[in-house]
Amino acid sequence: MQKIEVPIDDSVKPLDETKYPLLSAIHSPADLRALEPGQLPQVCQDIRHFLIDSLSQHPGHFASSMGAVELTVALHYVFNTPYDRIVWDVGHQAYGHKLLTGRAERFHTNRRLGGISGFPNPDESEYDTFTAGHASNSISAALGMSVAAALKKDEPRRNVVAVIGDASISGGLAFEGLNNAANSKNNLLIILNDNDMSIDRNVGSLNSYMAHLTTSPSYNALRYKVYKGLKSLHLVNEKNKGAILRFNNSLKSLITKEQNIFEGLNIRYFGPFDGHDLPRIIRVFNDIKDMEGPRILHLRTVKGKGYEAAEKNPAQWHAPGKFDPASGKMKGESGPRQGVKYQDVFGSTLVELAAKNDRIVGITAAMLSGTSMQKLYEVFPKRTFDVGISEGHAVTFAGGLAKEGMMPFVAIYSSFLQRAYDHIIHDVAIQGLPVTFCIDRAGLVGEDGVTHHGVFDVSYLRNIPGMLVAAPRSPERLRQLLYTAQSPERREQHPGPMAIRYPRGRGPEQGLDKPFEIVKLGKGERLASGTDAIILSLGPIADEVTKALELLKSQGISASHYDMGFLNPLDDEIMQEVVAAGRPIVTVEDGMVTGGMGSAVIEWLSAHDSSLPVARLGVPDNFVPQGKVDELYRLCGMDAEAIAEAVKHAVDPAKK
Amino acid sequence: MQKIEVPIDDSVKPLDETKYPLLSAIHSPADLRALEPGQLPQVCQDIRHFLIDSLSQHPGHFASSMGAVELTVALHYVFNTPYDRIVWDVGHQAYGHKLLTGRAERFHTNRRLGGISGFPNPDESEYDTFTAGHASNSISAALGMSVAAALKKDEPRRNVVAVIGDASISGGLAFEGLNNAANSKNNLLIILNDNDMSIDRNVGSLNSYMAHLTTSPSYNALRYKVYKGLKSLHLVNEKNKGAILRFNNSLKSLITKEQNIFEGLNIRYFGPFDGHDLPRIIRVFNDIKDMEGPRILHLRTVKGKGYEAAEKNPAQWHAPGKFDPASGKMKGESGPRQGVKYQDVFGSTLVELAAKNDRIVGITAAMLSGTSMQKLYEVFPKRTFDVGISEGHAVTFAGGLAKEGMMPFVAIYSSFLQRAYDHIIHDVAIQGLPVTFCIDRAGLVGEDGVTHHGVFDVSYLRNIPGMLVAAPRSPERLRQLLYTAQSPERREQHPGPMAIRYPRGRGPEQGLDKPFEIVKLGKGERLASGTDAIILSLGPIADEVTKALELLKSQGISASHYDMGFLNPLDDEIMQEVVAAGRPIVTVEDGMVTGGMGSAVIEWLSAHDSSLPVARLGVPDNFVPQGKVDELYRLCGMDAEAIAEAVKHAVDPAKK
Repeated sequence: MQKIEVPIDDSVKPLDETKYPLLSAIHSPADLRALEPGQLPQVCQDIRHFLIDSLSQHPGHFASSMGAVELTVALHYVFNTPYDRIVWDVGHQAYGHKLLTGRAERFHTNRRLGGISGFPNPDESEYDTFTAGHASNSISAALGMSVAAALKKDEPRRNVVAVIGDASISGGLAFEGLNNAANSKNNLLIILNDNDMSIDRNVGSLNSYMAHLTTSPSYNALRYKVYKGLKSLHLVNEKNKGAILRFNNSLKSLITKEQNIFEGLNIRYFGPFDGHDLPRIIRVFNDIKDMEGPRILHLRTVKGKGYEAAEKNPAQWHAPGKFDPASGKMKGESGPRQGVKYQDVFGSTLVELAAKNDRIVGITAAMLSGTSMQKLYEVFPKRTFDVGISEGHAVTFAGGLAKEGMMPFVAIYSSFLQRAYDHIIHDVAIQGLPVTFCIDRAGLVGEDGVTHHGVFDVSYLRNIPGMLVAAPRSPERLRQLLYTAQSPERREQHPGPMAIRYPRGRGPEQGLDKPFEIVKLGKGERLASGTDAIILSLGPIADEVTKALELLKSQGISASHYDMGFLNPLDDEIMQEVVAAGRPIVTVEDGMVTGGMGSAVIEWLSAHDSSLPVARLGVPDNFVPQGKVDELYRLCGMDAEAIAEAVKHAVDPAKK
Repeated sequence: MQKIEVPIDDSVKPLDETKYPLLSAIHSPADLRALEPGQLPQVCQDIRHFLIDSLSQHPGHFASSMGAVELTVALHYVFNTPYDRIVWDVGHQAYGHKLLTGRAERFHTNRRLGGISGFPNPDESEYDTFTAGHASNSISAALGMSVAAALKKDEPRRNVVAVIGDASISGGLAFEGLNNAANSKNNLLIILNDNDMSIDRNVGSLNSYMAHLTTSPSYNALRYKVYKGLKSLHLVNEKNKGAILRFNNSLKSLITKEQNIFEGLNIRYFGPFDGHDLPRIIRVFNDIKDMEGPRILHLRTVKGKGYEAAEKNPAQWHAPGKFDPASGKMKGESGPRQGVKYQDVFGSTLVELAAKNDRIVGITAAMLSGTSMQKLYEVFPKRTFDVGISEGHAVTFAGGLAKEGMMPFVAIYSSFLQRAYDHIIHDVAIQGLPVTFCIDRAGLVGEDGVTHHGVFDVSYLRNIPGMLVAAPRSPERLRQLLYTAQSPERREQHPGPMAIRYPRGRGPEQGLDKPFEIVKLGKGERLASGTDAIILSLGPIADEVTKALELLKSQGISASHYDMGFLNPLDDEIMQEVVAAGRPIVTVEDGMVTGGMGSAVIEWLSAHDSSLPVARLGVPDNFVPQGKVDELYRLCGMDAEAIAEAVKHAVDPAKK
């Protein structure tokens, strides 16, 4: 296995004492815990100032962490981290946590190659207890940790805290975790960080339910006081806990009309409390931290808290890019950005097509703006379905729509679509339903790193019978593929599901004004002719091949270059041409090499008794870290230089 | 693409009029709807008699369908099927539905090759509206259908009904469906068929919650009466519906202490009612069928209803095999069954290991008996976790346990593990956690058919960095692999996750009494030596290869045979030996050929510049139907005869 070696960026920038008087002296939570309670508001202020200063220059996720400052300080102040475990869900909100756990001086390397990760990352710090990045996993993971703590009787009590947002808790995985929380001995504390604002607006009934809970806190406040009163009188212990819980529940039925889903699931509920009232949440943490059994604490927070512009427009300030701290003016994307985003071409083409074809509906999972399906929503709100963080439901729901004659376009990021693998097979592919999967963020995505790279899709889709997989090499071709996907011609030739994978980045604008025309299904295209070798590529990485051909030209080497365009099937005509040419082959793809397009090529050659040598470039058998996409291409050996080298070696294996 | 052609078994056995006076005359729901209400109890009785008579001879799922007879009759009597849609969840309970929709005379072919499917199957009947087999998908699929009905304004109102059991509704996908049900215009009716008894006992808080709901039906009954009263006075219409709902809710708060999760999710709740009280459920269906918006109707039923032995032991009678109708005595497995079940070797070995290693814990998802993890539960109940139908949670929970030093063994059927693909990558593999995935029912499973074949696992696991994949060829080797998985040696050599895939069937008992010893990781074994070809196999399909070698011997052909044992990595030493031998290669595996073990072999050869020809046998690019495993091996071209043919062809491609 080729091992990706990442040069560590361990550069350190000590914090300015005058700007961050307390934070600059906190190198671990022990330093925080040595402070007086009265000093903690200053710590919060330092964290906010630091986040504003740092993120305005080094872009990252902003508003979520701003909203979680008091929560974070209170957690590390009350709980004995790292012995006690904090599990952050998704992790957008965990920057404050990184600052308090020894990473403030390295924070300028956030999201960079070799720098600290933009998400909690156990490889980076013992305080980052579990991988975060895909939503809704914190309850299940923390439950596992808490059950382990209960089983390991030789170790002292360990508290485990899951911190989950109001969007994440609507995912099926979070529900499965909640549904199991009361089933085994554990002391799990779940903190619901309810900012009523995930990346996009929240959807789903659970969410409106939580808004409702919040509007009548009187009962819960009373109940909490009753519990506290009993506890301070030392009247609460393991033996009578059950009786007190029942007492609380009947109290509840007397004074409120509320229903509480969490108590329906046998998890004790506290809240809602103001998540910015630091003294209060510290008191509450202290009160409930030694209770036995699973508990949920509902905190209301404001996304972007402490920075006016972000409080007003939290969605825009989720990941704002560079900005001017004083004016709150965003600076836009730095450097000259050419071309158009693939996602925008997807969004606007879908609107164009939907205007003509009333069977088209759009489905996404909490990524209306991230996938640009927002464009469809603005024009056809009734035909646009944002199902929240529910990738599995998104796909099965699309199956139901397709079964009744609709033509669903499901837009989900490649790495999140992994959540719906069974649903693709069972609820769509087995029935041969014409669902079009628009797989955004396919390939290496850059700074979001290991959890977000969309590198598995080709291999996990290619083994599904009847799944046509397309990868446009340009925005123009994406547009034509979307047109083709909904055309009667494609349904005649290929009635089943179709996947279109395209990257996070941008591509050239040309050709977007051309009239629609049908793309021939399963057909690739020759982009260059040459004599020494054959290069087969899939998707926009064709551009790297073009650059490689330039490099090779100066060395007197020429190669034919084909964009395969589709997988499952591979283009037979191209493959016959390749075999007839009898030159060594290099395959290039933006995804896992194992089981990917290159494997499809050698499978084809093997089935056709060809013994042409094939060098396969792409993501080697590693999890790929964060970095700029071009840096990662280089690390993985799939940039223009590496392609040129591979061709040279293929042409003359003796030289190297 | 090689197309699997299945010979249709369309043999017909007309029903005996004297035994089934009404059912014998029902060839479609229209015939049912032509009957008087007073005749319907006789229809129910006919269905029960028929199910007992037929299933006692032709084994299938018994108790679930017995419990759903009145529900099924009422559905087809009240709803205008097939124009109205019924979506069955899982489908164990849908035999009555099959009988009423024109398939009674073919029912003796149930689960057989070319016969009718044991699950609802849209390819078979327009009454089977959606694929069923994997739990919890009905709400999402039916919601899609219902939303489609609302969007298609040119068509008259269409009712869509999802029928879901109390175990299925605890899955995350069902929750995602419920959470989205109130978000779009639709008239979805969800029927919760609550028999308090999934295959194994139910787990999870939602379940105890539902039991609780049931014990105090007074409020709901009153509320239903209020609604009916208003409706009969024509006081319910779209305009005032909201007000009435609010009225109902405040009524509720006055007279009950119950919380209702479903109403928390904005789904109107009715029930619980006795699901065997046919006149009443027909009345309720008629009352609520034309209501607008999503509704849930909670019916209590008895699994196995109408057959005393099954009512008493519903779990045993889930799929009882052949039995004597009069005595209720099960006949056990027919024919001479030799050997031991792989699942039992898994179960008993896990108990042995857990006795010595207190870090071992077992996790399964509603399959305690199906995976034989019951054995662990009996000895170590606190270290055994049945998380219900929650495959995703099972894996992430295992990740949390492993992160805290426990050694989780997660036993899930191969096709259900597809639900947890992202969780395997994100919550286990990225962190390199030592979770052992015990993948039962890997390969073709036989009569359960297309939704249950475990054929994708090798290709979807093989692309995950650091995932060691093992496939024992015998129970003996499974036992040694389980021992190895938890040994310090394996964690030293391979600290990350490990998957062990094994089939549904049985294998030889020998070697199970040997002392434990470490299996060399990544190493295969030569089972036979020969001169003309090389056969590489993975898993127990090695037995077919052994038979093929016998066939070839008589024709003067000999081949070397290696059991590869592991994938990711492939055994380098064996591959070097294979290359040195320089003979044509045949690979044989019980899984998808695309991306499978054979692909790993040609990837290895390609990377090592070998041009040896390879013929790859296994499941071709098709969804595989039901049938006996040996029938399916033949259909897929992977039985002994096909292997022998492939070797002959490889040795002398000119002949054929």
